[in-house]
Amino acid sequence: MRTSQLFTKTSKTAPADEVAKNAQLLMRAGYVHKEMAGVYAYLPLGLRVVEKIKQIVREEMNSVRSNELIMTGLQRKEVWEKTGRWDDETVDIWFKTKLKDDTELGLGWSHEEPIVEMMKQHIRSYKDLPASVYQFQTKLRNELRAKSGIMRGREFVMKDMYSFHASAEDLDAYYNEVIEAYKRVYDRIGVGSDTYVTFASGGAFTQFSHEFQTICDAGEDIIYLHRGKNIAINEEVIDDAIKELGVNRDELEQVKTAEVGNIFNFGTHKTDEMGMYYADTDGEQKSLYIGSYGIGITRVMGVVVEKFSDEKGIVWPEAIAPYRVYLVAIGEKGKLAADVLYDELCAQGVEVLYDDRDERPGIKFADSELLGIPYRITVSDRLVEAKQYEYTVRKSGETVQLTRDELLARLG
Amino acid sequence: MRTSQLFTKTSKTAPADEVAKNAQLLMRAGYVHKEMAGVYAYLPLGLRVVEKIKQIVREEMNSVRSNELIMTGLQRKEVWEKTGRWDDETVDIWFKTKLKDDTELGLGWSHEEPIVEMMKQHIRSYKDLPASVYQFQTKLRNELRAKSGIMRGREFVMKDMYSFHASAEDLDAYYNEVIEAYKRVYDRIGVGSDTYVTFASGGAFTQFSHEFQTICDAGEDIIYLHRGKNIAINEEVIDDAIKELGVNRDELEQVKTAEVGNIFNFGTHKTDEMGMYYADTDGEQKSLYIGSYGIGITRVMGVVVEKFSDEKGIVWPEAIAPYRVYLVAIGEKGKLAADVLYDELCAQGVEVLYDDRDERPGIKFADSELLGIPYRITVSDRLVEAKQYEYTVRKSGETVQLTRDELLARLG
Repeated sequence: MRTSQLFTKTSKTAPADEVAKNAQLLMRAGYVHKEMAGVYAYLPLGLRVVEKIKQIVREEMNSVRSNELIMTGLQRKEVWEKTGRWDDETVDIWFKTKLKDDTELGLGWSHEEPIVEMMKQHIRSYKDLPASVYQFQTKLRNELRAKSGIMRGREFVMKDMYSFHASAEDLDAYYNEVIEAYKRVYDRIGVGSDTYVTFASGGAFTQFSHEFQTICDAGEDIIYLHRGKNIAINEEVIDDAIKELGVNRDELEQVKTAEVGNIFNFGTHKTDEMGMYYADTDGEQKSLYIGSYGIGITRVMGVVVEKFSDEKGIVWPEAIAPYRVYLVAIGEKGKLAADVLYDELCAQGVEVLYDDRDERPGIKFADSELLGIPYRITVSDRLVEAKQYEYTVRKSGETVQLTRDELLARLG
Repeated sequence: MRTSQLFTKTSKTAPADEVAKNAQLLMRAGYVHKEMAGVYAYLPLGLRVVEKIKQIVREEMNSVRSNELIMTGLQRKEVWEKTGRWDDETVDIWFKTKLKDDTELGLGWSHEEPIVEMMKQHIRSYKDLPASVYQFQTKLRNELRAKSGIMRGREFVMKDMYSFHASAEDLDAYYNEVIEAYKRVYDRIGVGSDTYVTFASGGAFTQFSHEFQTICDAGEDIIYLHRGKNIAINEEVIDDAIKELGVNRDELEQVKTAEVGNIFNFGTHKTDEMGMYYADTDGEQKSLYIGSYGIGITRVMGVVVEKFSDEKGIVWPEAIAPYRVYLVAIGEKGKLAADVLYDELCAQGVEVLYDDRDERPGIKFADSELLGIPYRITVSDRLVEAKQYEYTVRKSGETVQLTRDELLARLG
């Protein structure tokens, strides 16, 4: 894309009312627009990052044979009353609204109950099991405070997945398969080496659930880490987990983290509450086992910005950068050569943001760094004469001059 | 995809409380799930159709240089008060909710005002114009009644686009360019020959707006049509339009239609109300001209089902069918040959729904027809022996026997 066709503008200063680094940088770079605290619109470059994260998650959820669907934001009171979670005393983050006839409706903060209710119409026999479904849904949560930018929104995008099984063993096997899929997600996004499968508080069915916690100063969680044994424990269950796992507290390192995913084993608790059963081989009605698996898509994006940024701006990992190359044209001959290179790279499928504006080089370089595009290519009159391209790596700042062939080889 | 991995089930009967043919068929085929009147979840096959329609619309909106983004569902009262449209007396389809501190919020039924408010931060100079942005947004509208299935939802997906211009002439030129892009959209979706650019009531700035109306018995509109002159007029403006266009009422044919798109010329009315201006070449502050362009994505899907269905089920146009081929395996040898063909077709990029269930052929054929997949390939023991494949066209019912090479040539 040519920047002359992109309507968003960058800004040198952060908005005064925004305290979170992730939102400050994303707003300055024109990735997001703040509608109100905790509620952000995703402008063209921001939407590209969201879609890239979603696509990685989609591929990995498909790899564990899950079916993508999309539930509704408007939800029925009766569905949530079955589990006692309609009450604002029990769930204190509901946004609610009303139909014309005063029927109360909920706005989806979670889709656990509606998904189970929907699946009752399709899953009736052992032949229908196992089954797994997921969605990318905009969740609304009425948070009292929202000061963490896109890391904790009142409106945010979440991937939530639910699996249905005939036995506890089958759920366990799938649960472990999802853990591996989640690891691949975080590896691909670029935070894998700092993300830990963490013991956290369980529910009615299991002692522990598992969170995926990424080391991040702006995170809201504290975990205890044994890097050697690759053990991580949320402080909320530290005493129980130490006993269970046989580790010593003084071997553990305390770190600040952000929760980027969580998985729960519900056992048969929720299906029993909601009256969902299946007919076994002998025709007997039996309870279903459910697992629930979440990834906060926009939260992960926020965590990446918190972790990978410097005084100049964002430093996107290549897999989720909105564009791979930022092309800067300087001077008349530079412009002509950049036009040609832009067409060539686009034809080869390289995603290029081409700064074709009539601006000073310093402004273009600063925008390139603020936006955090992984590679910058500069084409100036002087370089054209030397038949060279300047190639700069955002992460390391390394700058080299390359011939056309060398450049294409690097981007190949 | 193999049907054994698809959790949705088909049903022979329609739900008693659903009166709209589109929703009846879509629910029977497992495309959608009804959460409540006018509120439908899109199950895996339904989501694929939605995404295909979106992708066609996306490509055509990109072709008129528009930038995709995504606004928020939660909206601020103050933004809508600027144009007097917060009041429930003025806009009677608001869903509203509240923050913990009792701040009232709106749930997006439209995004006109929030988009203008957001664009004020990016569009300041004649250099920034023209600009065009669009989104695929889930809109919430508190309709009193909702009996048209997915053709008029309380929650539905809409593509809304907004363009910003320095002059009325520039807006006019873009407006006409969008009309052509919309025609391409409806052509590609498969309803082009029955869709008319229709004169409808205008606003503060223009005498007429333009609707895209598709001939459809289940539609809620009446238009007057002159097929020879390719003139269409919504009955709401029939008297004015007859005068303006110089046609005789008795030349016009009255037809029932569904509105599948609309475009508005707002002139400078909305930007003036909201205080959006740009600095012209001489530094003078000037009013901006805006156009607004909508396509109801899920509504179009409903219209297609109403128009293209028969007593056996849905008949999807190829461009938006969830899969192109429905592969039916019969018998043991048939199953083995179908497994091979399935892998081959997938490797060639043909989208195949492979009915690998252990069911009677009649059930598989009936599901194939209900689901409305354009082409069915049957592989049975007898056919394997004859080295033939049975190829059936859903739309015409035409069935032929083909060799492997002939089959691949048809799908190539």
